[in-house]
Amino acid sequence: LSVLCTVALVTLTVTVVALSPRCLSWWQLSPVYQIYPRSFQDSDNDGVGDLKGIQSRLDYFQYLNVKAIWISPFYKSPMKDFGYDVEDFRAIDPIFGNMEDFEDLLASMHDKGLKLIMDFIPNHTSDKHIWFQMSRNGTEKYKDYYIWHDCQNTSNGTIYPNNWVSVFGNSAWEYDPMRNQCYLHQFLKEQPDLNYRNPEVMKEMMDVIRFWLEKGVDGFRVDAVKHLLEAQHLRNEPQVNSDQPPENISSHVELYHDYTTTQLGLHTILQEWRALMDEYSREPGRYRFMVTESYDEGEIDKSMMYYGTPLVKEADFPFNFYLIDLPDNLSGNGAFKLVDLWMSNMPKGKWPNWVVGNHDKSRILSRTGKEYINVINMLLLTLPGTPTTYYGEEIGMENINVSVSEIQDPLGKFNISENRDPARSPMQWDSTENAGFSKNKTWLSVHPDYVTVNVEAQKAESWSVLQQYRALSFLRESELPLHRGWTCFVLSSRDIFAFVRELDGYPRAFLIVLNLANRTTTDLASVLPDLPAQLSVRMSTRDSAAGQSRQAARLETERGEGLVLEYTATRLVHNSPAFQDKCFVSEKACYQSTLGILYKNC
Amino acid sequence: LSVLCTVALVTLTVTVVALSPRCLSWWQLSPVYQIYPRSFQDSDNDGVGDLKGIQSRLDYFQYLNVKAIWISPFYKSPMKDFGYDVEDFRAIDPIFGNMEDFEDLLASMHDKGLKLIMDFIPNHTSDKHIWFQMSRNGTEKYKDYYIWHDCQNTSNGTIYPNNWVSVFGNSAWEYDPMRNQCYLHQFLKEQPDLNYRNPEVMKEMMDVIRFWLEKGVDGFRVDAVKHLLEAQHLRNEPQVNSDQPPENISSHVELYHDYTTTQLGLHTILQEWRALMDEYSREPGRYRFMVTESYDEGEIDKSMMYYGTPLVKEADFPFNFYLIDLPDNLSGNGAFKLVDLWMSNMPKGKWPNWVVGNHDKSRILSRTGKEYINVINMLLLTLPGTPTTYYGEEIGMENINVSVSEIQDPLGKFNISENRDPARSPMQWDSTENAGFSKNKTWLSVHPDYVTVNVEAQKAESWSVLQQYRALSFLRESELPLHRGWTCFVLSSRDIFAFVRELDGYPRAFLIVLNLANRTTTDLASVLPDLPAQLSVRMSTRDSAAGQSRQAARLETERGEGLVLEYTATRLVHNSPAFQDKCFVSEKACYQSTLGILYKNC
Ligand SMILES: [Ca+2]
Ligand SMILES: [Ca+2]
Repeated sequence: LSVLCTVALVTLTVTVVALSPRCLSWWQLSPVYQIYPRSFQDSDNDGVGDLKGIQSRLDYFQYLNVKAIWISPFYKSPMKDFGYDVEDFRAIDPIFGNMEDFEDLLASMHDKGLKLIMDFIPNHTSDKHIWFQMSRNGTEKYKDYYIWHDCQNTSNGTIYPNNWVSVFGNSAWEYDPMRNQCYLHQFLKEQPDLNYRNPEVMKEMMDVIRFWLEKGVDGFRVDAVKHLLEAQHLRNEPQVNSDQPPENISSHVELYHDYTTTQLGLHTILQEWRALMDEYSREPGRYRFMVTESYDEGEIDKSMMYYGTPLVKEADFPFNFYLIDLPDNLSGNGAFKLVDLWMSNMPKGKWPNWVVGNHDKSRILSRTGKEYINVINMLLLTLPGTPTTYYGEEIGMENINVSVSEIQDPLGKFNISENRDPARSPMQWDSTENAGFSKNKTWLSVHPDYVTVNVEAQKAESWSVLQQYRALSFLRESELPLHRGWTCFVLSSRDIFAFVRELDGYPRAFLIVLNLANRTTTDLASVLPDLPAQLSVRMSTRDSAAGQSRQAARLETERGEGLVLEYTATRLVHNSPAFQDKCFVSEKACYQSTLGILYKNC
Repeated sequence: LSVLCTVALVTLTVTVVALSPRCLSWWQLSPVYQIYPRSFQDSDNDGVGDLKGIQSRLDYFQYLNVKAIWISPFYKSPMKDFGYDVEDFRAIDPIFGNMEDFEDLLASMHDKGLKLIMDFIPNHTSDKHIWFQMSRNGTEKYKDYYIWHDCQNTSNGTIYPNNWVSVFGNSAWEYDPMRNQCYLHQFLKEQPDLNYRNPEVMKEMMDVIRFWLEKGVDGFRVDAVKHLLEAQHLRNEPQVNSDQPPENISSHVELYHDYTTTQLGLHTILQEWRALMDEYSREPGRYRFMVTESYDEGEIDKSMMYYGTPLVKEADFPFNFYLIDLPDNLSGNGAFKLVDLWMSNMPKGKWPNWVVGNHDKSRILSRTGKEYINVINMLLLTLPGTPTTYYGEEIGMENINVSVSEIQDPLGKFNISENRDPARSPMQWDSTENAGFSKNKTWLSVHPDYVTVNVEAQKAESWSVLQQYRALSFLRESELPLHRGWTCFVLSSRDIFAFVRELDGYPRAFLIVLNLANRTTTDLASVLPDLPAQLSVRMSTRDSAAGQSRQAARLETERGEGLVLEYTATRLVHNSPAFQDKCFVSEKACYQSTLGILYKNC
């Protein structure tokens, strides 16, 4: 009998394993929260945030139910581009602390179940990096670590190898008197581009990744990937306006970047990095995550290539920046258009993600107006895939005003209209001086609204922006359809974007209704005939009145209102022929409610 | 005891398997022989070669010891580009026979241990293909199977979408009155380019590959791969000479093909085809081979990308066309330069190959002169990797003269200087009328030298071009160092290119000395101090005097002479520090002479 029992148990186990869908990984289960370390928490009162400061705030993430933290760069750096100009890929900048502080932070994070995603900046180094110093002076080993070409330096200025311009403006070439050649810099002249045609450079950067993987970091956000390779023929890039006198070209938007971005071979590099991370991902729960940063200016095909191919892995996802344009498309149709753009172009089986802000962009709330912050957070956290949150979005932080004389951002100094300081102001923790960010001074001013818009106040205030964010974060985690179910687009109009989240066999389905324009009454019963007449409110941006119910046929919503409606599905939307092209799922699974398990063959 | 024996045997077997290097596959063991089917053997006396004709000549390949046969296209075709314009990817053109003839041919080939490599032509179809017909008339499913764009058709001609020109000259766009749009054709206007941005096209072509794999073909030579994708933005390609009036651009060499060749995403397509062939390669001995055709005009990096990456397979090899330039580099240094170009750029562990002629190029012998044919065949068959032989090269066939009125080649009709007919004349089998190719007529004239230059005569003639080719083919197969040993470049000068083929543990090593210019005396003893003073002649182009010996320190060679010298190596060249950068091996292995086996951990 005991043999029979054992056989039965083994059979059952094997069956369960065989029928179970892949478990979601940590980067799928939690939102990704971006910390800009200069601005999160200052521990030594020099006015600039630091690693010890971050460590002192870890409980906040447990409060938020956020487990994946991306910290913008804290490598040793001359800070010409606030850390995106790295002088030493294996050292911490003193302004942020030291290697011990980093190790303490990482250990504390792991103790609390938090994952740390580092910034990886492969396209360039600082001009102070030892490799560049050795390359300038012609040391054999380092000669081809950067992209050097002959150019003519005369008393009237330099004649550059071609017309390429830097992302930050003016020529992408800089004459170096020591080497008597020009080097390429797609960003600041203090950020010379590395030469990935040189296999030694590839090896060096693989070693850098390995260094941090060995320390235990959980993933990398890979910076500016489309700039990694340039064409070797050095032909001029075509002008957007062919009538513009070539000598007047100075801005990045005046050229098509056919030879400086997204070159053949780029994806091979990223795939090798992914494979290296996979080597360190074998231990259960130790998956190393990779996300790429590339703005593809409406070329969605190029964005999707970072997902890899059916044959080879690449990024777990490329950041989806298309929702950053939401303020220019602030309507139900606009939100639908931007969401559908990603969903309908994403390769089958891949995992979406959503970004509305980061350290390079004006804060979303300052572009949409305060009234939309809750509905936008609801959109992010109820869509399929991983939401990302730029620090402060969870409490509704807005841009600060920065006068010309106060500008800190090098890009802002070059072009005031591109100043990124306003979105980088200190995190607003409480109503004490400097918003609890620092006891002494702050490198950028704190937003004057900090007295009311701060974490402490919103923890106390019922149904605050923070409370709603937190509720959404717990809701997303606790309800299977929200993190691994189907998504079906149900309705979009000027005012409303509505979609369903559902999972076969699961007792609850959710209808998300978001008002992104004007107060309106919507008839969802006619769109979804199988919907119950009454829907129970699981969450609303307007109040916390859970358990109330609404009429499907006459659903009223205010401007900026968002609703998570719950109902018992009789027929699921994704099974309806009318919605064949409007439903998505990353990996199909069904729920067996008696056993409380998921299975995939359904 | 028997248990012990079993354990010992199992252990031995496991050890042998674990220590054995991968076995070479059929495409590595044999030269690849190219048949241009119009010109190989006519069976029905219509003057054009056919499949039955090929079948009747299979014994010839056993005589040559050649096992891999690539047959240029025999798909149903209007023959605007002699079969590279395919009307039906699943049918045989009646001029070549029918499907039963094909199946008979393939079965006979397999019976004789021969492998059949088909031409696969994915970039375009014939304009007579049903897909194009359906695309022209706007049938929904086929609308986007080709690349259509609006263009203005006026009484003064058509204003095309951009300046792109066809490989064969003039605009790459053609106005179609039925659809009232222009379609893209990178080759003839009767060869519209397929649209690989449409996933349905990819599926169709995967099905075509599957169709022939199911029939049992052993591999594919994939045509014109760099043209598979084009940029979607349709910007003008840059002019090579920016002063040329844009309206005068008509030839392919007048533009840089930055937007019509080698686009991002190309390799993903090829990798998926390779993966499909792998699905059919699992049965032992049934490996399906893939070789790509791409002329990369000196951009060797682009050539090498077809080998795939460390993470994903692609072509088994891309055709190496660089030796086609040998006549312009006819010297020891020239041969070394071209060989080393491939070897020093090839990714580690990959397999080289060598081409000196094909149906698109003037015959090598007509460009170097008769005196070099034997040394060139010796070069091809003693280099590492797979040699390829264009039909007739093994007997020293030359170009025919074709008068303007006789031109058959569409490219030749467009531009006499590019006429490819001269290298496509009928195979010279014997001295009977039409060289034994056909009893009646021939589609191109037979070369007048056929009376002496033919297979039958050379079979009889001692140490003929054919005899030498055959001897090299057997030598290459029988001596391990020649097909899987090290290659070390020993010497190159105006007159001489010399290299060593050797294998650790193997009793014999070979020194290949090729004279590609003038009679000279070479001192190889000073270059290779460990070489024995006397080297035994294993093979010479001058006579078959095997067993003679030559002095290493004073080695005389005539113009066009090639020598395979054999010796017993005491210290192998690749172990010498002086030759560190001059030696290559695809996969390191050593020979154990007592057991007669190879092992890899050495
Ligand atoms: Ca770069
Ligand atoms: Ca094409």
